[in-house]
Amino acid sequence: MFPAAAMFTAPEHQVAGHQARDGQLGPLVDGSGRFYKPFQNDERGTNELAFYTSFSSDTRIPSHIRVFFPVFHGTQLINASDGSGIHPHLVLDDLIDGLRLPSVIDLKIGARTWFPSAPDGYFRKCLAKDRESTSSLLGFRISGLQIRDDDIGFWRPSRLDVRHFQVKDVRYLLRRFVSSNAASDSELDCAFASAIYGGSEGVLAQLLDLKAWFEDQTLFHFYSVSVLIAYARDGSEDGQGPGRARVRLVDFAHVLEGNGVIDHNFLGGLCSLIKFVSEILNNPSENSNSNCVQNKDCKWSFL
Amino acid sequence: MFPAAAMFTAPEHQVAGHQARDGQLGPLVDGSGRFYKPFQNDERGTNELAFYTSFSSDTRIPSHIRVFFPVFHGTQLINASDGSGIHPHLVLDDLIDGLRLPSVIDLKIGARTWFPSAPDGYFRKCLAKDRESTSSLLGFRISGLQIRDDDIGFWRPSRLDVRHFQVKDVRYLLRRFVSSNAASDSELDCAFASAIYGGSEGVLAQLLDLKAWFEDQTLFHFYSVSVLIAYARDGSEDGQGPGRARVRLVDFAHVLEGNGVIDHNFLGGLCSLIKFVSEILNNPSENSNSNCVQNKDCKWSFL
Repeated sequence: MFPAAAMFTAPEHQVAGHQARDGQLGPLVDGSGRFYKPFQNDERGTNELAFYTSFSSDTRIPSHIRVFFPVFHGTQLINASDGSGIHPHLVLDDLIDGLRLPSVIDLKIGARTWFPSAPDGYFRKCLAKDRESTSSLLGFRISGLQIRDDDIGFWRPSRLDVRHFQVKDVRYLLRRFVSSNAASDSELDCAFASAIYGGSEGVLAQLLDLKAWFEDQTLFHFYSVSVLIAYARDGSEDGQGPGRARVRLVDFAHVLEGNGVIDHNFLGGLCSLIKFVSEILNNPSENSNSNCVQNKDCKWSFL
Repeated sequence: MFPAAAMFTAPEHQVAGHQARDGQLGPLVDGSGRFYKPFQNDERGTNELAFYTSFSSDTRIPSHIRVFFPVFHGTQLINASDGSGIHPHLVLDDLIDGLRLPSVIDLKIGARTWFPSAPDGYFRKCLAKDRESTSSLLGFRISGLQIRDDDIGFWRPSRLDVRHFQVKDVRYLLRRFVSSNAASDSELDCAFASAIYGGSEGVLAQLLDLKAWFEDQTLFHFYSVSVLIAYARDGSEDGQGPGRARVRLVDFAHVLEGNGVIDHNFLGGLCSLIKFVSEILNNPSENSNSNCVQNKDCKWSFL
């Protein structure tokens, strides 16, 4: 007997990147925990495949660091989401698998997203985006997010809104991400800050683990790579509170060899993010509602 | 009685920046431990004065961090080195004062030397220099250096040579900086590596102190600021070995307010420098003479 053919669907909780909707080419999931990313037919595809292949077999990666990366299961030919027929896909772990109605945020790390040898056109495009977004200022930018709210389902800003986030918006949204009243007009309560950002297994502890590795590792330079943070509001064992937050790195189309030099660009941005998260943990009750993106400034799409 | 008028001379051991030689405008020293930096008649002068004034009275700077900054003694009108007459100068501690025949290196920190609001022309000039030099790649570049050698006096590369340093040159020169046989053709001995870079008061320990502050401080963003490292080969109490290395920050014409965000650009570069220094400490005997700037690749001027 053959196993039943997998049912491929667009990932329900993807917040950034190309999406497999409306006949576009984008990643698919099979409902059993695997994520299929279309192989890009240019140097990005080649580069990402080379990274996964090299990383997967690299014995210098400590196991406590390997957990931050999606497990790579090789490539597979499946029907592309845009209806163009059979197309090679990278097969990865679905990082959101098993999380019920997750809150998700995608943070592109690094003040600069262009790599030193980038062709001129790509360099200029990245540089402009880095200066227009918060990348240059903060060392990272938000690429997308959704926040679960009991009343309205999910809050997810439009791509246009995401593109226009300023420093104050980033500060606000990192608080909103861990608030139980994200959809209300009242002051953010940051009710989940200590459960999600804090503790020995929280986001901060995980980011500090990553930071320690980046202070030392000179194997890879990660350009345009994101930190993805995801958690389910009722994910704890008794279902009465949020489960452990997942912190993962994603998107490796622009990874270069480190050549004995640390990735100061990624590390600097990571340290900046760590400072933002630490501040929320230290001041969860601080009123940050004023002077920031809210309903009145920013249109939200309710899914 | 009036005190005798101070004798102002060009600093003997200045390795980077404008120099008060050949009728040019540059800093002066008075031989009694003070350094006079000509006030620049543009926003750089205003900005640097504002920084020193603000920093000097800022009670949020811990004393173990304040020691990395030159003490500021106000401004004074003295004769400019270019013969143009009375000119305002910033009066600072002479960071090299008391060091006999010092080895000195000036490391401009940060992958990017342009600040976010920089005017277009300045931005483009900085960006080009960052990409041509090692700044983009390493998160810092060498702006100048001199290395004391018993046989020939000082080794000091020309400005043109400094401008063309590549990654391998930086790695090599940080080893050469702590070698007793810097002038010879034989393999670098890194004889002073543990005394200068290592130990509880060495360069690495001082840089790690700075790093811890930069991970937290959001008061200032330091663009185009240098870490200056200086030591005397026979500076120990018994004169039989090198004295404690001085690590200082210099040049604050492009310091901006931090506005609650860490200086990820400076921090990233600092971490990169720390990694280079750590590697030398871990592998002082490693042969790095091959494939790097040496007598045959680089003309040195013997002072």
